[in-house]
Amino acid sequence: MSLDGEEAGPVFQDKEKALDFANYFCSYGYLYHQKDMLQDRGRMDAYRNAIVRNPGCFEGKVVLDVGAGSGVLAIWAAKAGAKRVYAVEATSMAVHARRLAEQNGVGDVVEILEGYMEQQTLPEKVDVIVSEWMGYFLLRESMFDSVLVARDRWLRPGGAMYPSHAQLFMAPLCSSLYHARVAELNEELNHWQEFELYMSEENGLTVEGLRESYSKEQLEYLLQSAQWCQIPERECIGDRFCILDLDTHTCTKEDITVVKSDFTTRISHPAALLNAFGGWFDVQFCGSESDETPNPVELTTAPSNSTHWAQQVFFIHPPQEVEHGDVIKGSIVLTRQKVNHRLLWLEVKFTVMRITLHNTELQPVAPERTLKYKID
Amino acid sequence: MSLDGEEAGPVFQDKEKALDFANYFCSYGYLYHQKDMLQDRGRMDAYRNAIVRNPGCFEGKVVLDVGAGSGVLAIWAAKAGAKRVYAVEATSMAVHARRLAEQNGVGDVVEILEGYMEQQTLPEKVDVIVSEWMGYFLLRESMFDSVLVARDRWLRPGGAMYPSHAQLFMAPLCSSLYHARVAELNEELNHWQEFELYMSEENGLTVEGLRESYSKEQLEYLLQSAQWCQIPERECIGDRFCILDLDTHTCTKEDITVVKSDFTTRISHPAALLNAFGGWFDVQFCGSESDETPNPVELTTAPSNSTHWAQQVFFIHPPQEVEHGDVIKGSIVLTRQKVNHRLLWLEVKFTVMRITLHNTELQPVAPERTLKYKID
Repeated sequence: MSLDGEEAGPVFQDKEKALDFANYFCSYGYLYHQKDMLQDRGRMDAYRNAIVRNPGCFEGKVVLDVGAGSGVLAIWAAKAGAKRVYAVEATSMAVHARRLAEQNGVGDVVEILEGYMEQQTLPEKVDVIVSEWMGYFLLRESMFDSVLVARDRWLRPGGAMYPSHAQLFMAPLCSSLYHARVAELNEELNHWQEFELYMSEENGLTVEGLRESYSKEQLEYLLQSAQWCQIPERECIGDRFCILDLDTHTCTKEDITVVKSDFTTRISHPAALLNAFGGWFDVQFCGSESDETPNPVELTTAPSNSTHWAQQVFFIHPPQEVEHGDVIKGSIVLTRQKVNHRLLWLEVKFTVMRITLHNTELQPVAPERTLKYKID
Repeated sequence: MSLDGEEAGPVFQDKEKALDFANYFCSYGYLYHQKDMLQDRGRMDAYRNAIVRNPGCFEGKVVLDVGAGSGVLAIWAAKAGAKRVYAVEATSMAVHARRLAEQNGVGDVVEILEGYMEQQTLPEKVDVIVSEWMGYFLLRESMFDSVLVARDRWLRPGGAMYPSHAQLFMAPLCSSLYHARVAELNEELNHWQEFELYMSEENGLTVEGLRESYSKEQLEYLLQSAQWCQIPERECIGDRFCILDLDTHTCTKEDITVVKSDFTTRISHPAALLNAFGGWFDVQFCGSESDETPNPVELTTAPSNSTHWAQQVFFIHPPQEVEHGDVIKGSIVLTRQKVNHRLLWLEVKFTVMRITLHNTELQPVAPERTLKYKID
């Protein structure tokens, strides 16, 4: 951003890239946004410790930082003893990263490459790839695609990925946010009645025929879209379950393009209202099989951990009463949105099952339900 | 928006259209957004009165509504006696407009055409074009381009445009918002100091070298971008001046693509701080030369009028002291942004001039200043 002249970002080969840039990369070009991420202590502590506490994994190595932003991972890698660090950044943040590397005394080690990862040609293979590619619910933003391209083209056999592993978790919730959203929905629907009156009395028009569509739109917005939320641990009413477990050294684009998983979870709280599923991720820094980190590090975004990712909440509307010991069996399908592949759809199918006095086997206590959510 | 299947909008011929659709039209596809506009009484009263109080201008006529939204202008035109109304709408709002037209008893008169205006072929020329095309500072969104295409292709000679005229105004301000923004800027810069400390102590990195860039970014965001604001009339400290006056029957795309205008305004308040210019627009509904409305209507978005457009504020930073009777002479250039032609740049050059005891002619009391603003 400059008032002297307008920055259009890189010159684009095609208009789809331009759209992608405009919609996705722009916010990462602002220092304000970078500062927000740099102030996320959970995030910073994990990456810093993963690198700085494992200098043996970086000393004399060639490192690639994919989506470097302000370049701190690259700088840490250089400070940990890397021989050479290539830091690829698509936005104009690259200019700031270059300055930071210099001012932190590693300008001769860190080479900032401005542009898309997919368009880079490195002069050599690398020993280590570091990247902070995780979006909400791990996969939103689809940035890991670029990391996979980098890995398959530039990581030498046996090289290490930072992070090395990633898991996507969900858990049944009794969320206080649900009640807030239902109240909001009711308020909107009440206000629509006033609106109908105003349109009829002052403008001589009936808009009754749009009431149902308006309700549907509000329902989708308030209760059928994933919500960013700091979930307190106490709102988890059952065991978490893992719906995706990646080894970033070996996983493929297919593994993350469509995620399908069955799940089982058990309600661990007394009689409660099941009104949502929560979702979050963990990543680990363990190095590669042939170059394990002596001091592995984990970054968790689980409930009660405050990172800028927080957690995602998927409401169950209407909610369902559950009891201690109930078992929820189900399946999820996580796919990308067609119009914007960086955004997601999540479908959850589930059945609440119970052992009753009359039956020693788990029986459904309510029909199977299918819910679908936008992750925007 | 639908949870059953994903709506991609119309099928696009090229990706630029897809970008335009994604960036611009989406919000207009939500009833929530339409409801907001329908609740803008200044806007609704003006259009309703322009149509309903001038039935002679609509009776038996063929009407075209460009960017019909929920279709209320089309419905009013039909109710005022139009023989036929074509209502063109690019978003899925077209479906709702069709239902509204039917339920308001004019489904046989109003024909909803879903798609871009530029791609429509009407079976006949029209007598009247109605459209609510005005964006912030009149020209933001560049929607009037589509109205011009419609006019040049489909309006019969002598046909009438609703609105028929539009003006863009500015005035010198002593804005209370300026002080709020300066306080915000100072807070951000103070916080940066804390951030430097945290980055150095906890992460072992110096980020001092980004301080200047961060200040510049915050300055641009907070003080060099147009701000949406409800300006109270009392904050206008001088006469308004007109920088654009359009007859929508005859103006051309060139008239709105680059707007250049000289201006002179006189400070009418006692000694005051000039810390901003305000900007707003008026439109009139007077019909065409050959088909004048008996009851002309004006829609004004001037300070102290509350419409959803409110006003735009362009800060003068640092501010300048002015006295009653001072004359400000200057010029403006309003252009479109390159990356997104729906957004604007405004450049203002001005000199504050005064008659002193020693000199009976206006003399500059400060050097000429040039300020540039993003209208995003």
